[in-house]
Amino acid sequence: MGNPNDTHTKLVPGAAGFLLQDVPHFTDYLDHLPSYPNPLQNNPAYSVVEQYFVDEDDTVTEEIVVHKESARGVHFRRAGPRQKVYFKSDDVNACIVTCGGLCPGLNTVIREIVCGLYHMYGVRKVLGIDGGYRGFYAKNTITLTPKFVDDIHKRGGTILGTSRGGHDSVKIVDRIQDRGINQVYIIGGDGTHKGAAVIFEEIRRRGLKVAVAGIPKTIDNDIPVIDKSFGFDTVVEEAQRAIKAAHVESESMGNGIGLVKLMGRYCGFIAMYATLASRDVDCCLIPESPFYLEGKGGLYEYIGKRLKQNGHMVIVIAEGAGQELLSKSLQSVDQQDASGNKLLQDVGLWISHKIKEHFAKKRMPINLKYIDPTYMIRAIPSIASDNVYCTLLAHGAVHGAMAGYTGFTVGPVNGRHAYIPFNRIIEKQNKVVITDRMWARLLSSTNQPSFLKPRDIAEAKKEKYPANGILDGKIVKTMSMN
Amino acid sequence: MGNPNDTHTKLVPGAAGFLLQDVPHFTDYLDHLPSYPNPLQNNPAYSVVEQYFVDEDDTVTEEIVVHKESARGVHFRRAGPRQKVYFKSDDVNACIVTCGGLCPGLNTVIREIVCGLYHMYGVRKVLGIDGGYRGFYAKNTITLTPKFVDDIHKRGGTILGTSRGGHDSVKIVDRIQDRGINQVYIIGGDGTHKGAAVIFEEIRRRGLKVAVAGIPKTIDNDIPVIDKSFGFDTVVEEAQRAIKAAHVESESMGNGIGLVKLMGRYCGFIAMYATLASRDVDCCLIPESPFYLEGKGGLYEYIGKRLKQNGHMVIVIAEGAGQELLSKSLQSVDQQDASGNKLLQDVGLWISHKIKEHFAKKRMPINLKYIDPTYMIRAIPSIASDNVYCTLLAHGAVHGAMAGYTGFTVGPVNGRHAYIPFNRIIEKQNKVVITDRMWARLLSSTNQPSFLKPRDIAEAKKEKYPANGILDGKIVKTMSMN
Amino acid sequence: MGNPNDTHTKLVPGAAGFLLQDVPHFTDYLDHLPSYPNPLQNNPAYSVVEQYFVDEDDTVTEEIVVHKESARGVHFRRAGPRQKVYFKSDDVNACIVTCGGLCPGLNTVIREIVCGLYHMYGVRKVLGIDGGYRGFYAKNTITLTPKFVDDIHKRGGTILGTSRGGHDSVKIVDRIQDRGINQVYIIGGDGTHKGAAVIFEEIRRRGLKVAVAGIPKTIDNDIPVIDKSFGFDTVVEEAQRAIKAAHVESESMGNGIGLVKLMGRYCGFIAMYATLASRDVDCCLIPESPFYLEGKGGLYEYIGKRLKQNGHMVIVIAEGAGQELLSKSLQSVDQQDASGNKLLQDVGLWISHKIKEHFAKKRMPINLKYIDPTYMIRAIPSIASDNVYCTLLAHGAVHGAMAGYTGFTVGPVNGRHAYIPFNRIIEKQNKVVITDRMWARLLSSTNQPSFLKPRDIAEAKKEKYPANGILDGKIVKTMSMN
Amino acid sequence: MGNPNDTHTKLVPGAAGFLLQDVPHFTDYLDHLPSYPNPLQNNPAYSVVEQYFVDEDDTVTEEIVVHKESARGVHFRRAGPRQKVYFKSDDVNACIVTCGGLCPGLNTVIREIVCGLYHMYGVRKVLGIDGGYRGFYAKNTITLTPKFVDDIHKRGGTILGTSRGGHDSVKIVDRIQDRGINQVYIIGGDGTHKGAAVIFEEIRRRGLKVAVAGIPKTIDNDIPVIDKSFGFDTVVEEAQRAIKAAHVESESMGNGIGLVKLMGRYCGFIAMYATLASRDVDCCLIPESPFYLEGKGGLYEYIGKRLKQNGHMVIVIAEGAGQELLSKSLQSVDQQDASGNKLLQDVGLWISHKIKEHFAKKRMPINLKYIDPTYMIRAIPSIASDNVYCTLLAHGAVHGAMAGYTGFTVGPVNGRHAYIPFNRIIEKQNKVVITDRMWARLLSSTNQPSFLKPRDIAEAKKEKYPANGILDGKIVKTMSMN
Repeated sequence: MGNPNDTHTKLVPGAAGFLLQDVPHFTDYLDHLPSYPNPLQNNPAYSVVEQYFVDEDDTVTEEIVVHKESARGVHFRRAGPRQKVYFKSDDVNACIVTCGGLCPGLNTVIREIVCGLYHMYGVRKVLGIDGGYRGFYAKNTITLTPKFVDDIHKRGGTILGTSRGGHDSVKIVDRIQDRGINQVYIIGGDGTHKGAAVIFEEIRRRGLKVAVAGIPKTIDNDIPVIDKSFGFDTVVEEAQRAIKAAHVESESMGNGIGLVKLMGRYCGFIAMYATLASRDVDCCLIPESPFYLEGKGGLYEYIGKRLKQNGHMVIVIAEGAGQELLSKSLQSVDQQDASGNKLLQDVGLWISHKIKEHFAKKRMPINLKYIDPTYMIRAIPSIASDNVYCTLLAHGAVHGAMAGYTGFTVGPVNGRHAYIPFNRIIEKQNKVVITDRMWARLLSSTNQPSFLKPRDIAEAKKEKYPANGILDGKIVKTMSMN
Repeated sequence: MGNPNDTHTKLVPGAAGFLLQDVPHFTDYLDHLPSYPNPLQNNPAYSVVEQYFVDEDDTVTEEIVVHKESARGVHFRRAGPRQKVYFKSDDVNACIVTCGGLCPGLNTVIREIVCGLYHMYGVRKVLGIDGGYRGFYAKNTITLTPKFVDDIHKRGGTILGTSRGGHDSVKIVDRIQDRGINQVYIIGGDGTHKGAAVIFEEIRRRGLKVAVAGIPKTIDNDIPVIDKSFGFDTVVEEAQRAIKAAHVESESMGNGIGLVKLMGRYCGFIAMYATLASRDVDCCLIPESPFYLEGKGGLYEYIGKRLKQNGHMVIVIAEGAGQELLSKSLQSVDQQDASGNKLLQDVGLWISHKIKEHFAKKRMPINLKYIDPTYMIRAIPSIASDNVYCTLLAHGAVHGAMAGYTGFTVGPVNGRHAYIPFNRIIEKQNKVVITDRMWARLLSSTNQPSFLKPRDIAEAKKEKYPANGILDGKIVKTMSMN
Repeated sequence: MGNPNDTHTKLVPGAAGFLLQDVPHFTDYLDHLPSYPNPLQNNPAYSVVEQYFVDEDDTVTEEIVVHKESARGVHFRRAGPRQKVYFKSDDVNACIVTCGGLCPGLNTVIREIVCGLYHMYGVRKVLGIDGGYRGFYAKNTITLTPKFVDDIHKRGGTILGTSRGGHDSVKIVDRIQDRGINQVYIIGGDGTHKGAAVIFEEIRRRGLKVAVAGIPKTIDNDIPVIDKSFGFDTVVEEAQRAIKAAHVESESMGNGIGLVKLMGRYCGFIAMYATLASRDVDCCLIPESPFYLEGKGGLYEYIGKRLKQNGHMVIVIAEGAGQELLSKSLQSVDQQDASGNKLLQDVGLWISHKIKEHFAKKRMPINLKYIDPTYMIRAIPSIASDNVYCTLLAHGAVHGAMAGYTGFTVGPVNGRHAYIPFNRIIEKQNKVVITDRMWARLLSSTNQPSFLKPRDIAEAKKEKYPANGILDGKIVKTMSMN
Repeated sequence: MGNPNDTHTKLVPGAAGFLLQDVPHFTDYLDHLPSYPNPLQNNPAYSVVEQYFVDEDDTVTEEIVVHKESARGVHFRRAGPRQKVYFKSDDVNACIVTCGGLCPGLNTVIREIVCGLYHMYGVRKVLGIDGGYRGFYAKNTITLTPKFVDDIHKRGGTILGTSRGGHDSVKIVDRIQDRGINQVYIIGGDGTHKGAAVIFEEIRRRGLKVAVAGIPKTIDNDIPVIDKSFGFDTVVEEAQRAIKAAHVESESMGNGIGLVKLMGRYCGFIAMYATLASRDVDCCLIPESPFYLEGKGGLYEYIGKRLKQNGHMVIVIAEGAGQELLSKSLQSVDQQDASGNKLLQDVGLWISHKIKEHFAKKRMPINLKYIDPTYMIRAIPSIASDNVYCTLLAHGAVHGAMAGYTGFTVGPVNGRHAYIPFNRIIEKQNKVVITDRMWARLLSSTNQPSFLKPRDIAEAKKEKYPANGILDGKIVKTMSMN
């Protein structure tokens, strides 16, 4: 895949500790490019607008909790339409590809790229790549017009199809050249952006005038820098349904336990927010916070105590929680029956099994009901607030590509849409910081113990963000977006 | 009501153009007040947290679209728990009051003030004031405990009851004194905050150690400074249902018009966002953008054209749109039948009537269906994202009051919760700026004309925000929150 | 329109007081018609079915509450596929028309007629008539294929469009002949069936081999004989939303009254069932049960009492309730302002106005919120149970037409689908019988007074069904279907 | 458990082949019992009702598809209030118990028994038995009042708690005597009714004046005689959500398969109706219709074909489908790893595993997503139509018990509520008849093969109902209820 860090970093300093982390532009590697007046200036809808175009100097602050004497810190280029564009409308030949798992809002993003290009910039040629990165090599593409996409935001999934992996950047850039494509919109997560970075580098190496724009998609909210990923609010909302059912089931049976598995392979945002929004959850387990089963302070003890107090309880577990325990536990099992064990790799099935086993041994009859709503959650259409968010993302990407920016992703930073260099998106994942107030708030709302051993606490505290005079940076931001 | 601007402004300057607009504190007018260590430091849920307490120097930036050389501008005090508190838990005697119209999330805010005080600070005495400000004079109050409020966030409305107006600040402060109340949480909008400001001044005048904390509530999103009001996303989501029905009705009949009235007496945020989220709307009318009915470029002409093109259309109108037209129109009507005319003061009924009348005169048969979903929208429980938002608001208020701040309201500024002085909330209303890009985006999505006469455009451009090097301040922020 | 009773009644007697009310058949007026084996017998899906075809002698009992020695009473021909059909698949040229107001399930019926004809009988030619009866004269028709209708059941409304009235039976039959149509599926209510009866008579007069099949549609459930109309359960379900909102609004304000208007011009089934399903309603007003406002035992008195007891109340009113009061009230008003008065013809607006006026005079402040959810209710897609019901209706109609029956409507009688002669559908309307137990059940659940004067009671008792040894015939049936 | 057939059958013949299958009454085994006038006759809500009380001779016909010369067949006693009751209101001491799995509507039935007894008969003493049959031995009971149950119908589950099995009829009757209970309302399915029959026999043996009334509850709709079980429509409606998600998932991935498991251990009604209502399902597998995986005409072949045609498919499987295949398959697996194998006893996990394994062997990459919405479906509150149905059931049971009937269950037969002797409910289970038209309709809608071998077909045809001149008795009835 090459080195994603090849994306050349552009840094611009300013007064009082100001630093702009800028994104690439065609003019960085192409000479004598002509530019054109932005066609939006003739659009009747914009005739009233005072100053429609983003000032070239506008930047968005990354750090906004500051002190009187703080340095101003990192900034990003503000997203939006520019005075000048680097494409004639008729020359644009755009394509859109969706990669990775489903996420509510995908179709809205597709719709708004197509409609944004068409209505704002008069672009008529937009192709849909079929089934993720590997669709670039396939013969089929889908012609996308405003009429074709008119109602797609009312449906879940992606009309383009999607898949994981499957990108060979050289072959992909070959096909981009073959087809004369000059704007590539890539909707996907961490891995997809790594791919996009390599594609961008290859395009730059070949000196092609092809804009590569990423739209960050992650159902788990694990993409850094941006405030919140699209579809997140929809997913947390829909998860309430599963939690409510678990609550009813648990209350209706003696020693009832309702167990809900939610998405989150490496981070527990969905589980944490769904728990905070619901208030019916007694225990929330996430990948970032290790826990143990047996003994004092362990999960079994807490469950036993809770059942004695209330007669029932609800547990929410993120799919990536307890991975360490799980793999240890499966290693010890006889490996002969591959099929059964495979199922146990689902942490929800595994922990259901363990809890039942434990209380059976203790001769305490329990009624555990396990709910895995994953596909029912992620396949729904996005709620209204996500629809508007997806529209802004799509338009931000379109404005950026038209203006000659490339190798960028778009997303809200402290509420304002900005262009962010790929490397900031790729270099690490957003996680719940368990030494932060939001997680404390969760613990206090469920009344669960922290399940941490002193060693874990020390470990966790080490992972905190570098001291910069700001306490609880990124996470608090994400949290407070809601 | 007295002068709400009496709230003494506290301004603290800093480096590079930094300015803190601070909120009042007990120590501003009370001497020798003892303080206590924050009981949170012994709370097991917080034992892991690195640095739980907000640094006294933390502030939140109001302007975040900046230039390399910008002045740093206005800041607010960051919300959150402080090292020291000014109440012993046992001494706290809090009360909560809800004022004005219903808004999804009210019960969540109430629940979280009660639970926050109880679980975080060990406060046992919380009273609910019954039925708005005038409930202060009434005999009935409601004893609020975590058990009592446990499930209320799943219901719409407010369990405390509400009403408009009805406050006599001297009498209210008398009753606050009589009852020994020392923390007053006031949930309400513009008018309610004006009242809160006067109550605060009276309390300060009498030298009472009573904290007054506002929680901004406005279904219309018309409160300035904060990013977005709670319940807003819920309302825009629920409005989709009405728009969808209007769309189906209009499509099923020849020359079908579906007309939906949405909330927004002085500002069109709900109508604008509901339109942007839906994509089925052909025309959106809001208070900020004047329009006219007759003649070239008028509404009738646009409706006629649209029906000819598509055979059907959907119109969304904010309740405060076209007030000027409406009052002119009603003046000309014979005033004898008060009851009929009263109904016509509903802009939805009035404009339905006008449109029918116009096309009847033109002998063009139309089928207009008018939907007013107001009460069906505002009486529902809040969606998950609003639930989490309400939790943060409530906790922010509780932390502030415990820490001795008073005369403040709490709310997110660029995604971080902050304490905002009353006067900033009261001094003006948040409005859709029709010379801004968000409204342009709306026009471009519906393809409706601007309905503006040249004079209106000039007028509108005058209303823009004072030049500060930033183009589209507050509004863009609110917009991009989604 | 001619005399709808011209439909020649076919009566077949049997043993022990058995009577079959049969429907017309081509062979009644056409000689020497060839018949063909039913193509279903070669359909793989039916290969397992024991005896797929309905026995020619099968009938469905109308009276099922009987005594040991009862006469057997009226029966209808059972619906379903017959051994012989009177059309070759290739010769069928069907059309579908939808008339009157929207009703959830319309698109499902359309879909299933098209798919039933195609998949069961190999019929390829199906036309949609655009916009109700008057669409027969128009040029546009819509070609209906299984692919075209594949997803339409997920949308509300009717893809064919609809309108009221507009039929000139001679012209319609002319156009049927011109187009070579030989199966006409007419989806509509009372009035539409009257039209269908005249069309059928005209076709019979001209000796045409054209089957006319009615599918009964009425959102109000006012069609007699059949158990329940399609869409009814969907509508009652959706009405809960409005009632819930009214309940929340009323509880949140002092002396809060939530008033909900539901469909039902001549009958109160929707209001009655929605009230029974909800349990939050304090008063339900329907067309069948007269009421009065002033004085002892009147509505005002009840409202006043209820507010004193509970502080709030919910009223459900059917759109046709209190018409007599309303017209009296409007006559007394000065007629000068036509527009205002027109609005007052909406019983919900009118009664809101009256109640406010009354309590204003009494100086008792109330908070009345009026909700009219009509279009939001009727424009939604049908729920699952209605979807299955619509499928059975559509297939019943298709089987009947293919088998040469005509001048019939299809519908469930005591749970079995049957063919019913038009005159039974047209001759009277289904109504809530207020001297019956279901209405008593409602009164007992709301605790409202009957609002009846002794004269009304005597009147109501006169309207009971003719004595036949059975107490509460049709209505109890409808009620107990749920 | 004793012999449930001990319930003494009461048969009453009449004219023309009429037969009444009557239910037991106190007077069958108790002499000189006093009776009282029904207090309903003084209830104001019933003052208008013409003839409120059910005529002693009213019966409900079981067979309603008949021929001209048919015998009249089996009838049941009509449910409803009687002129005379056998309890004084003050003497009634009722109890309610819920047994078995959750089902939407349980709380509505509980509510309406309590409110029916209170409001109609003035009964003040109603106890809730906690946690199913075994709750009779426990100390805790719940005092049920109209106020306590006022809002419970808005929640899923059962406020009484439930459990399976656990009844020792002698001990139960001992506790009934100890507590002075004289009306026992038992809500449950097949097994629960078997228990109720034994309890009834024991009570009769002891000569106690204790009424035993069953209310049939089965989420699977497997109880015979009655038209449809409560909660069924709610469940089929909610299942649409899972099917829709499966459809979106399958469409978004190459060779996507969405697999949904629905309830139905011994019968496939939920799967069949959910499939018919949805129209997005390509294959529906139910317990009644055997299928095989490998080879020509098998499931694998069909899946392969469908994926080639469409690129995606949706499969619905009832939890009891393919049990024979599954147990064979699991026997062949090494038994060492109990935990993994246990999971595979879930037919959905097992068949997912088998399908993946098969196509992996064939090197055809597929994307299978498995959804098990069971608990999310059954834990929701009932929809409006089920609410009204539950009300009628509860009131029917109350009227019966007050009138001295016992050893009966209540339920709709052809749309009218009737009292049915226990043995008719217990003697067999309701099943989908795969030689019937409803299943043919399903096959035709999904286009799936029947998966039957010639031997299976012969077998299936043998299971048909005894010839009685009627083709498709019970099942068509159930089907056409919708």
